[in-house]
Amino acid sequence: MQYQRVSRDVVEELRSIVGKGNVIFDDEEKLEGYAHDEVQGLKSMPEVVVKPQGAEEISKILKLANKKLIPITPRGGGSGLSGGAVPILGGIVISFERMNRILEIDEDNMVVVVEPGVITNDINRVLKEKNLYYPGYPMSVESCFIGGNVAENAGGGKAIKYGVTGRYVLGLEVVLPTGEIAHFGGKRVKDVTGYDMVHLLVGSEGTLGVFTKIILKIIPLPGKIVDLFVPFSSVTDAINTVSKVMSIAGIIPTAIEYMDRLSVRTAVKYLGGRFPIPDAEAYLLIEIDGGNKAQLEEDYEKIGNLCMENGALDVFIADNNSNSERMWKVRRNIGEAFDRFEPIQQGEDIVVPKKEIPKIVEELQRLSEEFGVLIPTFGHAGDGNLHPTIIKPKDMSMEEWERLLQKLLTKLYKKVKELGGTLSGEHGIGYKRKKYLPIFLSQDEIKLMKRIKFAFDPNLILNPGKIFDIDMV
Amino acid sequence: MQYQRVSRDVVEELRSIVGKGNVIFDDEEKLEGYAHDEVQGLKSMPEVVVKPQGAEEISKILKLANKKLIPITPRGGGSGLSGGAVPILGGIVISFERMNRILEIDEDNMVVVVEPGVITNDINRVLKEKNLYYPGYPMSVESCFIGGNVAENAGGGKAIKYGVTGRYVLGLEVVLPTGEIAHFGGKRVKDVTGYDMVHLLVGSEGTLGVFTKIILKIIPLPGKIVDLFVPFSSVTDAINTVSKVMSIAGIIPTAIEYMDRLSVRTAVKYLGGRFPIPDAEAYLLIEIDGGNKAQLEEDYEKIGNLCMENGALDVFIADNNSNSERMWKVRRNIGEAFDRFEPIQQGEDIVVPKKEIPKIVEELQRLSEEFGVLIPTFGHAGDGNLHPTIIKPKDMSMEEWERLLQKLLTKLYKKVKELGGTLSGEHGIGYKRKKYLPIFLSQDEIKLMKRIKFAFDPNLILNPGKIFDIDMV
Repeated sequence: MQYQRVSRDVVEELRSIVGKGNVIFDDEEKLEGYAHDEVQGLKSMPEVVVKPQGAEEISKILKLANKKLIPITPRGGGSGLSGGAVPILGGIVISFERMNRILEIDEDNMVVVVEPGVITNDINRVLKEKNLYYPGYPMSVESCFIGGNVAENAGGGKAIKYGVTGRYVLGLEVVLPTGEIAHFGGKRVKDVTGYDMVHLLVGSEGTLGVFTKIILKIIPLPGKIVDLFVPFSSVTDAINTVSKVMSIAGIIPTAIEYMDRLSVRTAVKYLGGRFPIPDAEAYLLIEIDGGNKAQLEEDYEKIGNLCMENGALDVFIADNNSNSERMWKVRRNIGEAFDRFEPIQQGEDIVVPKKEIPKIVEELQRLSEEFGVLIPTFGHAGDGNLHPTIIKPKDMSMEEWERLLQKLLTKLYKKVKELGGTLSGEHGIGYKRKKYLPIFLSQDEIKLMKRIKFAFDPNLILNPGKIFDIDMV
Repeated sequence: MQYQRVSRDVVEELRSIVGKGNVIFDDEEKLEGYAHDEVQGLKSMPEVVVKPQGAEEISKILKLANKKLIPITPRGGGSGLSGGAVPILGGIVISFERMNRILEIDEDNMVVVVEPGVITNDINRVLKEKNLYYPGYPMSVESCFIGGNVAENAGGGKAIKYGVTGRYVLGLEVVLPTGEIAHFGGKRVKDVTGYDMVHLLVGSEGTLGVFTKIILKIIPLPGKIVDLFVPFSSVTDAINTVSKVMSIAGIIPTAIEYMDRLSVRTAVKYLGGRFPIPDAEAYLLIEIDGGNKAQLEEDYEKIGNLCMENGALDVFIADNNSNSERMWKVRRNIGEAFDRFEPIQQGEDIVVPKKEIPKIVEELQRLSEEFGVLIPTFGHAGDGNLHPTIIKPKDMSMEEWERLLQKLLTKLYKKVKELGGTLSGEHGIGYKRKKYLPIFLSQDEIKLMKRIKFAFDPNLILNPGKIFDIDMV
């Protein structure tokens, strides 16, 4: 694909579409804020940033880009972990910061209609007043945009019970790469009228269409929430307990988060406070919720006992908001903590079938020894979704580090594949993981996905360089 | 598209692929069984029927058909309600009757792996022994195949709480129209590795690929089930109560089924038994389930009182299997009952946002008067998904009936669209509804779907004539 650069004429056209004040051009400092997401070391400057309002403006922008063959990169909160919002080939970045309205809370139909630039947490801030709830809970919930959550099919901390973002997306207004405004799904819980375009678009990482309105299913606010924070003296004991909570106790918790010693220590150091839980090798953070207090008490007793029988050092119960938030804050900040204290590291997002979690944790320990690197690990163990973080030794050269990483990741991924797992559970392939896609998908499977990409985007202008290399279509 | 007829040579090749005894050819009587589904008056003979076993055989069949340009129609239990399994253009029907094994019950990962020809009910028959549950519950649960459920994204009676089929499909082995065997998803609850092919294939009505293995998520068997059967003296009272159960009582039931007087009477007549519930204008069948008996009692008291406050004549509680089954049997057999007693009728599958159910029921009553036809109505009111059944007056000519139907349906659909609803909630577009698709989807939206079809099936051999007309690509 031969893309064109953004000319002064194109900038003028963009200004006339979105208004002069909503275009950033020729301003390195401001443009730099749109050159990266949360992937360490990945940066690529946009040529121009536009901040449109509504589908009509975005339609005009896409028609222009499609005619001129200029790459378009949609950008949400910039908290992504796969480089999905990084304009790898320059061109135009569409930022949704001005499309941040909650358009409608429809209690009768139990849906909320939002623009893509709403911060995910803000949805629940508003819903809470009406005793309603949107169960999406990515760890970046305080800064990520709902549009990005939908584009990545974000998972997060409450997916065991509530599922991932896609389960809640009932309808989308979307601008196609060729500029048409399309509507798929709606305020309805069932719809088999043609192909399921909604769920093809969910998780398509901004490569198939640009969302302009999102209809989300909401549920009644869960009555009461209890968190159990459980330290273990061994990683193995903690990990082996995960599947037992569901299989032996027969309870489907909201969350079962796993954190090893180094992950917790790093987050606590980053947050700066003291952490009133004894030093241990591994921790589980288990959340349950429900409308019935008696049932909830019965459940957490059962889970607590099960943990103690399986090597827990203690079980701390948090049954009020501030104690719960203290525990979750540690969990939510692990990623950022490593980013701060370990200048060079690689965060992963592997998934395996639940039963195989102990095996993959064992493999991570083995790889850590074989390669002589630390691999602290945390994540959504109840979903089989872990975030091992490979830390570069301080004295290693960058060349050596790159070689090591490639070797280590290839070994890790092959094991993940062998165990029936996959490359990414919730962060996406984006730019960061695309070279490893062929370990997990066959050439035929990738070719089919490229044909779908081509069906949406014949000029390949939308978020090029993500998921796979488009010049291979 | 210029399709070819099935030659004797092709039949010989098919025999060598699946074995002589697994090909039906030149036998009108046997072929006729594969010429229709449950859509009244729709029949088209296959040229040949094959009963393969496994992906390898199906791959060979599709490669052959793709080379010779012969239409392929995959067929499940034949209980479909949109003509999806009817070989409109002749060619080869693939029947899954020999691919009926439950391959694996994996309790650790809470999944079951099945072949597409398993009868949906049989999955739960086996799971029940292990206290496990698959929540799919189409009304044809005793005869439909799970492969058909996935192809249509079947809804059914328990979708309010448990969602539709697609929520449970974690992975698919699928033969592409060009013959490649692909694997998407797996035994994992999160997966964002490339596009969500699993959910694009779910509900694609056998037009994008042929399923050969299905990985389904399962859940613990719900502890206890209670059904409430509630007669009302007016349709309006019954329908107005539906949304109140969820919004006022704050309970998410498993099911809220609506049946009007004529629907219930016809089913009871068909079943031949006596129905120990007083004669009323409309009925709700409300099911709740849960692990905690006290909670369940509290919930059904609340729902019962709410019904009585809203015009119910009485509330009958069924808290054992045989009473529940007696009520559900009536509900499940309405469709078949109309099919038996009303030789010519048209069953619909409209969906509207929950809040709009009273308005659409009002419109149905209006249309019934305007056109002078009976339109008994039943369905999954809690999902906003209704099955109005338009009955041909006995003395009306077929020409007049066809004209009436087209006029009535066009008016009905325009109202459904105006209310934010859609053409089909769970039965699919198939052959039966394709001419009405443009009322609900724009030309751009349909064109995009056709491009996706083309990405999968460049020779357009797989289930042609369904959803839209393929020669328009």
